[in-house]
Amino acid sequence: MNRNDHKLEHSFSVDVRVRYAECDSMGYLHHGKYWEYFEIVRTDLLRRQGIRYRDLEASGVFFVVYKAACRYLLPIQYDDLVTVTARVVRITRTRVDHEYEITRGDTRTCEATSTLACVGPDGHPIAMPPALWSPPKD
Amino acid sequence: MNRNDHKLEHSFSVDVRVRYAECDSMGYLHHGKYWEYFEIVRTDLLRRQGIRYRDLEASGVFFVVYKAACRYLLPIQYDDLVTVTARVVRITRTRVDHEYEITRGDTRTCEATSTLACVGPDGHPIAMPPALWSPPKD
Amino acid sequence: MNRNDHKLEHSFSVDVRVRYAECDSMGYLHHGKYWEYFEIVRTDLLRRQGIRYRDLEASGVFFVVYKAACRYLLPIQYDDLVTVTARVVRITRTRVDHEYEITRGDTRTCEATSTLACVGPDGHPIAMPPALWSPPKD
Amino acid sequence: MNRNDHKLEHSFSVDVRVRYAECDSMGYLHHGKYWEYFEIVRTDLLRRQGIRYRDLEASGVFFVVYKAACRYLLPIQYDDLVTVTARVVRITRTRVDHEYEITRGDTRTCEATSTLACVGPDGHPIAMPPALWSPPKD
Repeated sequence: MNRNDHKLEHSFSVDVRVRYAECDSMGYLHHGKYWEYFEIVRTDLLRRQGIRYRDLEASGVFFVVYKAACRYLLPIQYDDLVTVTARVVRITRTRVDHEYEITRGDTRTCEATSTLACVGPDGHPIAMPPALWSPPKD
Repeated sequence: MNRNDHKLEHSFSVDVRVRYAECDSMGYLHHGKYWEYFEIVRTDLLRRQGIRYRDLEASGVFFVVYKAACRYLLPIQYDDLVTVTARVVRITRTRVDHEYEITRGDTRTCEATSTLACVGPDGHPIAMPPALWSPPKD
Repeated sequence: MNRNDHKLEHSFSVDVRVRYAECDSMGYLHHGKYWEYFEIVRTDLLRRQGIRYRDLEASGVFFVVYKAACRYLLPIQYDDLVTVTARVVRITRTRVDHEYEITRGDTRTCEATSTLACVGPDGHPIAMPPALWSPPKD
Repeated sequence: MNRNDHKLEHSFSVDVRVRYAECDSMGYLHHGKYWEYFEIVRTDLLRRQGIRYRDLEASGVFFVVYKAACRYLLPIQYDDLVTVTARVVRITRTRVDHEYEITRGDTRTCEATSTLACVGPDGHPIAMPPALWSPPKD
């Protein structure tokens, strides 16, 4: 493993109730909306570490999605209460990889991955602030 | 009529094809999405006057919706091709009122109104640039 | 007052955290998204009465928005935690009127109204099931 | 190659103007919205073959996204006019694979892939109608 990265198994889950407006004519959660759900959990994962993403942006630190992939195993329906989990699987000074899953009760309905890059206000890569880069404390 | 305002009947129409992701479980265009359609036409109405809203924002001039009302006369469905019309009905140095309608063929499906306020980057009211305030040329 | 309607002051509130994807370039909750928030609270208001909107639809009973109006008093920003309140102000066998407000702490940021019509799968007006029509029990 | 599949290079492009409501606080097209753009082009690709997806659904034939992946090479901004291209790269009786790209002028900003499954109203896999399965005619 490179000096510049470390493997983490830091994870967080959030319960989300599927909204009417998020579903398509089939009554299924639209496949593009899943990325909003993952974003919510990433934000709450940060919040739990004492970091507010809104403050990061105000200080000129942004995260942009560079790569994303998802397998939709089973449809999710309007009004379903699902559990969305995000896990940091790799972090370097300039990027972070997450894994996600969505479950409904005991059933896994979806699994996904993403790579985010840390950029400045001009969109160019920058190093993350130390508070993000240093391993979480749990 | 006040020196600071003038009545206009400046209007513009855009054809929009209803997207799958914009419809709900009934297969109808979600009522909140209509406001995106009106926004598209407002932007194109400006563009036709030689003004790009993106450039306005870059120069510190923003328009925020202060008031909005809509009557949904008939449902609009997925894949419908509708005509969205916006008309400036009143403009002052700090606000602009629009009327909208959506038609499908000869049938009017919706009518709406809005009031937008011109604000600076901090959200406080400012006077519009003269290019916006002066009456359009057609 | 007509025999077919009665005034209610039945209200319900839900806390909603504003999502990143719901905000526009100004960092403000997009004005069209407010209608999703009101929809969430209407659904939860029904749930509290023991009725699941999803089950209504499965049984062929739908509610469509016929009229909607909103005043945006103050912007709502990304990551704000807001309280969304819906109140049934009038109900007849075929339609229901709601009032809404959104507050952030002690500050009211928005007030709105809507009229929903009860329709069948073909979009034509029908009478509401008695469980909806009869006054709520609190 | 299996008797049940054939490689196609059938592609289609659509110009899309990025809407204000589709962009996030950075002023970038939100990464989840790209999937709406790809959906638009898939629908138009079908339309060009004389098939309306809406009619397919009315006849009990649905396509659900089973797998999706995207690389976001460069940000896309509000008001950008981009060209979205979809290409059918593999089709069997029960699934279809697409490749996508988005370009702005000569610059490729994004590349993506998806696998869709053909399902009935109950969500179970079914064979596509022959009109879809047989190779396109151009």
